[in-house]
Amino acid sequence: MPDYAAQAGEILRKVRSDRPVVHNVTNYVVMNSTANVLLAMGASPIMAHAPEELEELIRIAGSVVINIGTLSAGWVPSMTRAAELCSIARKPYVLDPVGAGATQLRTETAAEIIRWAVPAAIRGNASEILALSAQGGTTRGVDSVHAVDAAIDAAKELALTHGTVVAATGERDYVTNGEEALIVTGGHQLMEYVTGTGCAASVVTAAFIAVAPDPLIASAAGLAYFGLAGEKAAAAAQAPGSFWVKLLDALYEITPEELAERARIAKA
Amino acid sequence: MPDYAAQAGEILRKVRSDRPVVHNVTNYVVMNSTANVLLAMGASPIMAHAPEELEELIRIAGSVVINIGTLSAGWVPSMTRAAELCSIARKPYVLDPVGAGATQLRTETAAEIIRWAVPAAIRGNASEILALSAQGGTTRGVDSVHAVDAAIDAAKELALTHGTVVAATGERDYVTNGEEALIVTGGHQLMEYVTGTGCAASVVTAAFIAVAPDPLIASAAGLAYFGLAGEKAAAAAQAPGSFWVKLLDALYEITPEELAERARIAKA
Amino acid sequence: MPDYAAQAGEILRKVRSDRPVVHNVTNYVVMNSTANVLLAMGASPIMAHAPEELEELIRIAGSVVINIGTLSAGWVPSMTRAAELCSIARKPYVLDPVGAGATQLRTETAAEIIRWAVPAAIRGNASEILALSAQGGTTRGVDSVHAVDAAIDAAKELALTHGTVVAATGERDYVTNGEEALIVTGGHQLMEYVTGTGCAASVVTAAFIAVAPDPLIASAAGLAYFGLAGEKAAAAAQAPGSFWVKLLDALYEITPEELAERARIAKA
Repeated sequence: MPDYAAQAGEILRKVRSDRPVVHNVTNYVVMNSTANVLLAMGASPIMAHAPEELEELIRIAGSVVINIGTLSAGWVPSMTRAAELCSIARKPYVLDPVGAGATQLRTETAAEIIRWAVPAAIRGNASEILALSAQGGTTRGVDSVHAVDAAIDAAKELALTHGTVVAATGERDYVTNGEEALIVTGGHQLMEYVTGTGCAASVVTAAFIAVAPDPLIASAAGLAYFGLAGEKAAAAAQAPGSFWVKLLDALYEITPEELAERARIAKA
Repeated sequence: MPDYAAQAGEILRKVRSDRPVVHNVTNYVVMNSTANVLLAMGASPIMAHAPEELEELIRIAGSVVINIGTLSAGWVPSMTRAAELCSIARKPYVLDPVGAGATQLRTETAAEIIRWAVPAAIRGNASEILALSAQGGTTRGVDSVHAVDAAIDAAKELALTHGTVVAATGERDYVTNGEEALIVTGGHQLMEYVTGTGCAASVVTAAFIAVAPDPLIASAAGLAYFGLAGEKAAAAAQAPGSFWVKLLDALYEITPEELAERARIAKA
Repeated sequence: MPDYAAQAGEILRKVRSDRPVVHNVTNYVVMNSTANVLLAMGASPIMAHAPEELEELIRIAGSVVINIGTLSAGWVPSMTRAAELCSIARKPYVLDPVGAGATQLRTETAAEIIRWAVPAAIRGNASEILALSAQGGTTRGVDSVHAVDAAIDAAKELALTHGTVVAATGERDYVTNGEEALIVTGGHQLMEYVTGTGCAASVVTAAFIAVAPDPLIASAAGLAYFGLAGEKAAAAAQAPGSFWVKLLDALYEITPEELAERARIAKA
């Protein structure tokens, strides 16, 4: 059985040495916070959405994040164009289908983006993954109303249908390419008291995918790293304001060696 | 005389147990920070503005915030549509007329939103409340140039004209439905050195209004809770960066019992 | 030789007493963080971009920031209109050409803004300054790929061509009006691990320019103040989350006397 934790450590080492550019077409709420997550972990973020400049920016990116939070009709062409350019330039992208299932606009836009180009990974909460699968599902706003376990079949189906990796994250994370599946444990309940922690998990995943060949391993490794950062932050802070500050600190401070030792990734 | 502090504690208890969804059509500056305020206090924020999805989102909301900061013409239909949907779905909304009085666009847009549907409460600084009343008034940018006391008559008139609650906030807060009025004391001068504290007071008010029957009591209770959080934060931090972190922590840490003991609300 | 540090202290004293309004047409990523920087240092920020209200807001501003991050075609008229209004109302503005050189849209928009009105100062990293000069240059995303020294000739040329001050910032800052040049040292390597520190340097510069007659001295003084804040923050925090919090604290805590003593500005 492969040593997933060791692989996670190796991928973080590569992020730190390569400093991959991660291009983000993302929502207003997390533009600042996810840029800070990427910088703290050692990657190089770009946040930009103008269709006119996406080609130049995605060309220099190692990976791309498309996040449909704070969606409006005017932004959909930026997102589908970004997906198309990922396909043309052979850049992996992570889709974060924020609020899929909560509104028709979100569910349909997520599906439309996937039609333009298959993402390397889709990271969402259980409700979002259910909504994107043929099984459907609804959600209450942007927070999940389902436990991760309820989304396992949907995740498998979604992964097989599109040939992608699906990560359903929550109290534990289920990551699958439809054939193999990994379980990642970590994190802390305080993450639910800070906005954009799911979006942050997506950008971490994208930075890992930028430097690693297998998006299944890379996604699980990124989520294990993010979860470890959450645990370290919770050990240093007991309330959400301080917790977020310490989470950024932990992303910066965790070494590849520490991740190789502490990442908790197991076969499902 | 009613025990307002005890009522404030009860409303906070209900926020914590119900976790009301608060939908926000708000400005770019505070999308992240007010989402964090709502999460820290135990509510569930949605930040979204696309007219296509407002109906689905407001349907599941307990209350709504419409905030006109970073206004542009393209956003006005989102705001008037949100107000209209609040009226249709009988959801209370809080209007935050950021910068009313500073520009014609802001003053007129705030008035237009009110014409679509009467808010449950309007929360603004003294200059903004003066600008929305028949008495008029100008402001210097988005910061108040008037003391709260200068806006008392304007607040009463505005409340009576529209049948709403008006909260003029500042060094102390004056909250009225036009007939009764409450004074809330609390807060700290460091709040003026952090962006979006007024906007944060509005979302706290909205979360309280979502779970309480009387918007006068709920607004005063929310402001007393926010003021207490400011006092606790100032006891732990002496400069604005740390102060904001501690303010989020305090919103999370204050218990209903503590609020019932320490809220400072009095009849005007 | 003039005592630049003493002058820096005097300018900070004037910011604290005048509380200049700094109007910002800026990018989504830093709207919150740069508003907080301006408040922490004692200035009064407005963040607004609607062409309809720019005239009313710039009229009350002491200075203006135009920052082209997260640019899209729809925002260009706001930026050119802001520049035009600065010219009409004789208000100094600081141009932050984020990502110039990375995309054609950015490079051309920065040039177009300058054609509408000459900024009091242009603050960018070395790659951005090279891109705006006749010497050209490319950049990798929004982070500089050039050392400041590589941009000295470009900065001089750009300053002389337009009759403006150019500040190329990085591991040290080079500030010139084309004839005289100053070198500012300070800051800390952790600044590269937080988003928007360049944008923050620009708004600090704008606040200093709002109250000082000479934009060369004001720019250098603002950058020295910001660098000192970075040093103090790094003495209190060893990772990027905490560092940013402490940076805001330091901007608030540094007194004019301390700046007069510790600002490091020298003739080039």
